[in-house]
Amino acid sequence: MPDTPLPDIAAVLDRLDADREGALERLFALLRLKSVSTDPAYAEECRRAADWLLDDLRAIGFDARLVETEGHPLVIGHGGPEGGPHVLFYGHYDVQPVDPLELWETDPFEPRIAGLPDGRQAITARGASDDKGQVMTFLEACRAWKAATGSLPCRVTVLLEGEEESGGESLTAYLAGQPEELKAADVALVCDTGMWDPETPAITTQLRGNVTQQVTVTGPSRDLHSGLYGGAAANPIHELTRALAALRDAAGRITLPGFYDGVPELPEELRAQWEGLGFEPGDFLGAVGLSSPAGEQGRSALEQLWSRPTAEINGIWGGYTGAGFKTVIPAEAHAKVSFRLVGEQDPQAVRAAFQAHMRAAIDPQCGVAFTDFGAGKPISMPIEAPEFAKARQALTDEWGREAAFIGSGGSIPVVGQFKRQLGLDSLLIGFGQDDDRIHSPNEKYDLTSFHGGARSWARVLAALAG
Amino acid sequence: MPDTPLPDIAAVLDRLDADREGALERLFALLRLKSVSTDPAYAEECRRAADWLLDDLRAIGFDARLVETEGHPLVIGHGGPEGGPHVLFYGHYDVQPVDPLELWETDPFEPRIAGLPDGRQAITARGASDDKGQVMTFLEACRAWKAATGSLPCRVTVLLEGEEESGGESLTAYLAGQPEELKAADVALVCDTGMWDPETPAITTQLRGNVTQQVTVTGPSRDLHSGLYGGAAANPIHELTRALAALRDAAGRITLPGFYDGVPELPEELRAQWEGLGFEPGDFLGAVGLSSPAGEQGRSALEQLWSRPTAEINGIWGGYTGAGFKTVIPAEAHAKVSFRLVGEQDPQAVRAAFQAHMRAAIDPQCGVAFTDFGAGKPISMPIEAPEFAKARQALTDEWGREAAFIGSGGSIPVVGQFKRQLGLDSLLIGFGQDDDRIHSPNEKYDLTSFHGGARSWARVLAALAG
Repeated sequence: MPDTPLPDIAAVLDRLDADREGALERLFALLRLKSVSTDPAYAEECRRAADWLLDDLRAIGFDARLVETEGHPLVIGHGGPEGGPHVLFYGHYDVQPVDPLELWETDPFEPRIAGLPDGRQAITARGASDDKGQVMTFLEACRAWKAATGSLPCRVTVLLEGEEESGGESLTAYLAGQPEELKAADVALVCDTGMWDPETPAITTQLRGNVTQQVTVTGPSRDLHSGLYGGAAANPIHELTRALAALRDAAGRITLPGFYDGVPELPEELRAQWEGLGFEPGDFLGAVGLSSPAGEQGRSALEQLWSRPTAEINGIWGGYTGAGFKTVIPAEAHAKVSFRLVGEQDPQAVRAAFQAHMRAAIDPQCGVAFTDFGAGKPISMPIEAPEFAKARQALTDEWGREAAFIGSGGSIPVVGQFKRQLGLDSLLIGFGQDDDRIHSPNEKYDLTSFHGGARSWARVLAALAG
Repeated sequence: MPDTPLPDIAAVLDRLDADREGALERLFALLRLKSVSTDPAYAEECRRAADWLLDDLRAIGFDARLVETEGHPLVIGHGGPEGGPHVLFYGHYDVQPVDPLELWETDPFEPRIAGLPDGRQAITARGASDDKGQVMTFLEACRAWKAATGSLPCRVTVLLEGEEESGGESLTAYLAGQPEELKAADVALVCDTGMWDPETPAITTQLRGNVTQQVTVTGPSRDLHSGLYGGAAANPIHELTRALAALRDAAGRITLPGFYDGVPELPEELRAQWEGLGFEPGDFLGAVGLSSPAGEQGRSALEQLWSRPTAEINGIWGGYTGAGFKTVIPAEAHAKVSFRLVGEQDPQAVRAAFQAHMRAAIDPQCGVAFTDFGAGKPISMPIEAPEFAKARQALTDEWGREAAFIGSGGSIPVVGQFKRQLGLDSLLIGFGQDDDRIHSPNEKYDLTSFHGGARSWARVLAALAG
């Protein structure tokens, strides 16, 4: 490993500008791999994505390998000069399912460039934004550093997982061992977040946690004719809907006992800064066909999105759902339910309160069963740490606008795990846009996000190396 | 057409006993036809079933034809001596969908004889009980009358439809014309009802009406990430579940304004007779894995089943329902909802009240749309009419037990249409059992129901001819 050359950021940025086509070709190759981690049918495609990233890290010069797990493999690579600053970059190569497939305008796994109504150019494909496009902004920055200067500006460890969209158990198990190769870093860089708007970069400084589970209510031993049994026979769909409806009161507050324990009021300075962002709820919701905030009454839309907990029914099914009509009382009904958590809320306590609520609300002659999926604690970053100022300046230099410190309604459980298991704070820097449609049909990633993101990472690495 | 011979019921019953194998072969041939009327994919199979019945009616000696409709054809046949008593027999050749197919122990369209734990023998197939087996009990009785005596004991018109499980619009349209060939009858015979128990025949004297519809709630213009939008974005599944849960109060009463208008209290004499039936709710519900009546508090299980109205969610779906977990706020959610009606409840008024309730309960920024399926008024029979005494005696003679006058929670809209359009009362005589699993996997029809049913019809025809 050569000594670190003096950072020559201009040469690195020129290199990125010169290699835009090559960068797009590499991203497209990764996007063509159908790495849907929640569906066992795509396990082999997940491995292909891990192998592709392994090869690419090695091509850049990383000392990289796959770490086998009970699920999809981790990809870990080390590069750059030892002894100095050391960053740990995290991303994931798995993607969300694509259904409903019929709503995609083009093949979700055949990426292409499309123009947006406002003139922006974007890459359309499942994973274009979440998270393959974001991951590649960082790898392209590393590639350009190597090409332009012969080395990375500082020690870089890359950690990529394949289960971010399906609970992340394998990474959780790996981090539980507090591996030295990761603990050695000074700070983590986590890329699957967004910009404030297409012109304004951002560092996300607080994240909601989450709890996800599936609940199944069982009633009759078989589907019943609702005429012959209706009225006397317990209907699992009734039980499920009544119990789920009771999760929220008329004011939009979640009714679980103790749910709001550890939910802090928004600090005045942060409230002031958020109000300064000029967020327009009507525009934000209008862009997705809605008009008014539907959450807790008396809370601003940004609070509802960033600093207040939620309960959501993400899926529900039971009984006859086909063509025509079938007068059936079904044997069972199901729902997928998630909570977003903030402050000091405890995911396990919320999970326990939810299960207790459902068991108490359901007719005792019916059965209630739960399947746990992932959970993550909410987290807030120490924005006074020097890395935050350095990264913020680097982003501001690239985009010509003051980078914003923002919150996020999303949950990135790994950030809390990095803190607890590795003692690392995370710099949440990403280049997604609100209209990227992640987790939805026609997911896209702006070309300006992709190229500007790579240039941004080149600058952030230089800043953190200094 | 010859003069009516003196009914020789003994010879007719002997003929039925002698031709049991032939009767089974004919029923099996009809059961092999996949006449699922709700699914357009099976339209051709529905026509095959109609053609098969047309041929069989002609083979028996009926002057039969198909009546084409906008949907599946009607089968109409006339036979027996004119000028005397005239009965109109009604049945349907369509069947319910078979899903969930994986719960069938054998191919639903490959009928076979199976032994039940208590020693009963039964025919297992979709439609075995509802309604092909029941229809064939009547045709076999007619066939035996012709074979044993050269004629039917009275004028018989057979009317078979192919949309009973899918709304019955075509028959409704046909009956609206008040066709003379049907109005000429004195009484209708409707076969898709059941016995009180495997040893006790019954005539169903009151039926609940019903209203069926699908409701769709639309929210965001696309599926949203529940982290990025959750809390501020209206969730159609929340809206749907909250609105549906509000249909019933804590006491199990339906909350729609005016819903109970026209719901009568049970006449004391009928209440006494029902109590005399020795119905055991624990046994009835225990047989399907339940334990206690789940309907209106303060009502007996038989009232909940026979004489009280209900609201049921027969199906619900929305959001992500696949493997794993997807934190999505879906663009829409759906439910299939039906009501069972009694007394003077008006199906259209109930439908309107339901739609008004849903529109009022759903967040106005969401859309609410409805698809209407069938509806039918509740009805009670004039049990003092002479045909009821004659038929009751014939059934009592066959089974050696006093035939019971019972209620039914099911809805048979055609009975009300016969009354309104044709001025005909209906004798609801069928031989199904509570455990026939109609509309469920592994539907069956007891051999004693099939053979005893045919013998019963032979006797009922003789009684009504006399």
